[in-house]
Amino acid sequence: MQTPANEKRTEIGALGEFGLIRLLTNSIKLNQESSIKGVGDDAAVVNHQGKNTVITTDMLAEGIHFDLMYTPLKHLGYKAIVVNLSDIYAMNATPTQVTVSIAISNRFSVEAIEEIYEGIYVACKKYGVDLVGGDTTSSLSGLVISVTALGVANSEDLVYRNGAKPGDAICVSGDLGSAYLGLQILEREKQIYLEHPDVQPDLENEQYIIGRQLKPEARKDVIELLKEHGIKPTSMIDISDGLSSEILHICTQSGVGAKLYEDQVPISEEAYNLAIKFNLDPITCALNGGEDYELLFTVKAEDVTKLSNEWNVTVIGRIAEKSEGVTLTTKGGNVFPISAQGWDPLIKAGILDA
Amino acid sequence: MQTPANEKRTEIGALGEFGLIRLLTNSIKLNQESSIKGVGDDAAVVNHQGKNTVITTDMLAEGIHFDLMYTPLKHLGYKAIVVNLSDIYAMNATPTQVTVSIAISNRFSVEAIEEIYEGIYVACKKYGVDLVGGDTTSSLSGLVISVTALGVANSEDLVYRNGAKPGDAICVSGDLGSAYLGLQILEREKQIYLEHPDVQPDLENEQYIIGRQLKPEARKDVIELLKEHGIKPTSMIDISDGLSSEILHICTQSGVGAKLYEDQVPISEEAYNLAIKFNLDPITCALNGGEDYELLFTVKAEDVTKLSNEWNVTVIGRIAEKSEGVTLTTKGGNVFPISAQGWDPLIKAGILDA
Repeated sequence: MQTPANEKRTEIGALGEFGLIRLLTNSIKLNQESSIKGVGDDAAVVNHQGKNTVITTDMLAEGIHFDLMYTPLKHLGYKAIVVNLSDIYAMNATPTQVTVSIAISNRFSVEAIEEIYEGIYVACKKYGVDLVGGDTTSSLSGLVISVTALGVANSEDLVYRNGAKPGDAICVSGDLGSAYLGLQILEREKQIYLEHPDVQPDLENEQYIIGRQLKPEARKDVIELLKEHGIKPTSMIDISDGLSSEILHICTQSGVGAKLYEDQVPISEEAYNLAIKFNLDPITCALNGGEDYELLFTVKAEDVTKLSNEWNVTVIGRIAEKSEGVTLTTKGGNVFPISAQGWDPLIKAGILDA
Repeated sequence: MQTPANEKRTEIGALGEFGLIRLLTNSIKLNQESSIKGVGDDAAVVNHQGKNTVITTDMLAEGIHFDLMYTPLKHLGYKAIVVNLSDIYAMNATPTQVTVSIAISNRFSVEAIEEIYEGIYVACKKYGVDLVGGDTTSSLSGLVISVTALGVANSEDLVYRNGAKPGDAICVSGDLGSAYLGLQILEREKQIYLEHPDVQPDLENEQYIIGRQLKPEARKDVIELLKEHGIKPTSMIDISDGLSSEILHICTQSGVGAKLYEDQVPISEEAYNLAIKFNLDPITCALNGGEDYELLFTVKAEDVTKLSNEWNVTVIGRIAEKSEGVTLTTKGGNVFPISAQGWDPLIKAGILDA
């Protein structure tokens, strides 16, 4: 827990369930025209006037997706929203509403839950979505946050995972592997702290990397740029489990193969240097690290020239015939088949072997 | 856990996350015309052609909402869906899609999770809704199920909690208190079992009461009957926390008072006798028990004659002026103010005093 001992601590019992809900939702203003009814009835009401409603849901569990020893609660709330919005953008849709359900134990104070909601509201405001409902309940143990996001799109704009064709360029936004390396730093600092509680961590030079883990952003900007420039991806997915896992999803669902090139995969200088320091292969971090929440998408060959260098989007390979498989060509010219070894919450819990 | 030692047990690790999702979702058939895209992409897509989309979400946590010592996993899955659909019906809307997120620990086998999903699919089929998405993740401790349900309604059909007017009749479907008494039986049998594992429980005569707790139904039939007979409730809510709590929600949001009459509140014979046996006041069980998932609604005075005796709907009082407060007139003619003491998940976890 992040709260110093001398900060105010209100027991949840002092408010009751409805008091807590009122406290957490009394600042909500609905901004979306489609939000007809928000929190406060059996259900929320949205009206998208014949457009498609896009729905996604993601659950974050304490000890699996986050460790409260190094995750500020506000960042946690922010991230819980962003990872859902990222899925909506990956459909080439615009997120419009979210619902948030939280299970909490009595080791959390009202102030702690307010901090989570503060992050939730910051994310809602930044991305222009309305919080329209949710559920607040108890947990006998850990904290669990479940978010469902709704978005809207015209039928002709929707982009699925199954539309990639041989010859299409494979593109990725931003850079990969940083979120995973951020997690490695935080885990290292946690161990140091547990062994030497008097040592202050020096994370001055790791702000970018740590930020990528604790406070990821959804690539609304990329979706907008593509739309502005008349580029409709042929397939798209967001990178939550890692590049390997996601390209395999696209290839499986599209019935195609893919050729990726190691020297094209974008890795930040910070991430590259840190991987070396941790004795990790930078490309492995990019392929399997996950949680970068960048967009992986394919575009027709003729659309590649429309991509601007200023967008921070990189072409990392080409869609191939299914028979050619899904491969990575290394800097040394070797060709390896790509297999899914992405971040897996079942591995994290020890249910699967890593 | 319900699984006898000699039944098949597949470790989740043997399947992996995507294998597990495939196993759990490969039998899904989308039946709703509005379900454009279901499981298998970043998000689901629904298209309601200009009608209102109604959204609700509810989370069930192990140890708070259910005890696996006496909750069959199939019933748990069924109930997780039903409690959400109940909220959609309480808006006078028709449920159309659900998403399901589950956090599980490795003490659950693949077969156990399949049992939960079996119940989910039975409920989806019975109520004609499509499962269109979800998330499967790990938990370091208990089982948590989070469901979001979507429904559809014309604007003019929607019923909120805030439309009750003085003079309206207060109606309730079915009977109240049984679900709470079912929980008391199950808790009693659990204690007996823990102390005397060789004693077989005799629940022959308690099937109705226990069923009300373990496998509640949403009152789709009542919504359909009201519509068929041209009755639009002025306000409506489903009874999840207890009659007291729900009538207070309606009165607070509508800015009115209410007069309820003890002798009108429907209590089944089984529940009545059992309450006496447990040394509980039957009306208290009905007022504060919760989890009956019946519908509490108000109708204009002139619509009361349209209600049929065959519908199993009872008029239990009248909406009054706000200044008259919210009261219960007992069989003895005493008038008591009603306060919210409904089932509260925060009480259950020891966060609030009961």
